[in-house]
Amino acid sequence: MVKNKKAKGSGSERELFHMLWESSWACVRIAGSGSTSKPAPDLLAGNSNRKIAIECKALKGEKQYFEKKEIEELLEFSKIFGAEAWVGVRFDHLGWRFLLAENLVKTKGENFVASFDFLEKNGMKFEELIGKFKQERLI
Amino acid sequence: MVKNKKAKGSGSERELFHMLWESSWACVRIAGSGSTSKPAPDLLAGNSNRKIAIECKALKGEKQYFEKKEIEELLEFSKIFGAEAWVGVRFDHLGWRFLLAENLVKTKGENFVASFDFLEKNGMKFEELIGKFKQERLI
Repeated sequence: MVKNKKAKGSGSERELFHMLWESSWACVRIAGSGSTSKPAPDLLAGNSNRKIAIECKALKGEKQYFEKKEIEELLEFSKIFGAEAWVGVRFDHLGWRFLLAENLVKTKGENFVASFDFLEKNGMKFEELIGKFKQERLI
Repeated sequence: MVKNKKAKGSGSERELFHMLWESSWACVRIAGSGSTSKPAPDLLAGNSNRKIAIECKALKGEKQYFEKKEIEELLEFSKIFGAEAWVGVRFDHLGWRFLLAENLVKTKGENFVASFDFLEKNGMKFEELIGKFKQERLI
């Protein structure tokens, strides 16, 4: 079960990795993300204007939980590196939604949670995350 | 022999990774660097002012060779991501020397080479790479 979850996570990571490259962002997947002594996001992407660190999840249900430590480390890494800290959740049939990690809602247990409805209201779609809409408006 | 070289490379990567964190830079090691379809450096490090992509080597001899493709991909990645492109060579007993990838010298075979003497004259030590000396002068 845990193994399946991990495999699903890696698959969504790879998907986002390629979506970013196809949108002319450079992107790397981090070796040992979640298993080294130093904080690291799942993906780190950049272009000449912006750098974004992303923690990725894929799920079939309605809500995605994030561990307190995971989000704290994402925020810590991003602050030192000089990047925006984002979480990306891939909902089956509904696609990706992204939220600035600082806007996640805490659960009673001090972890974090994001439902699809919450992300639909407060988050961004991929094209918004990478600023495609903004660019199109400027052209 | 190839396996030994790779192990040595990974060790030097890890060493530099920790040197950067200890100097208050955030640093990540890239998953599948050298084996994915997209260009990626060995290490990617940043602080609030600068982002640096590094290709690392460790050797016992006097000269380090870099493949043409390796350097081209480092330059391509760095340009898209918005990072400085560096090579770092760790010489036994002499420590690290760093050079902007664009300053590497081409061999007749279109690859690149850097001798210790060349790096000693044209490259930087670790403290210079991360701008420690500059910061100290400013204080």
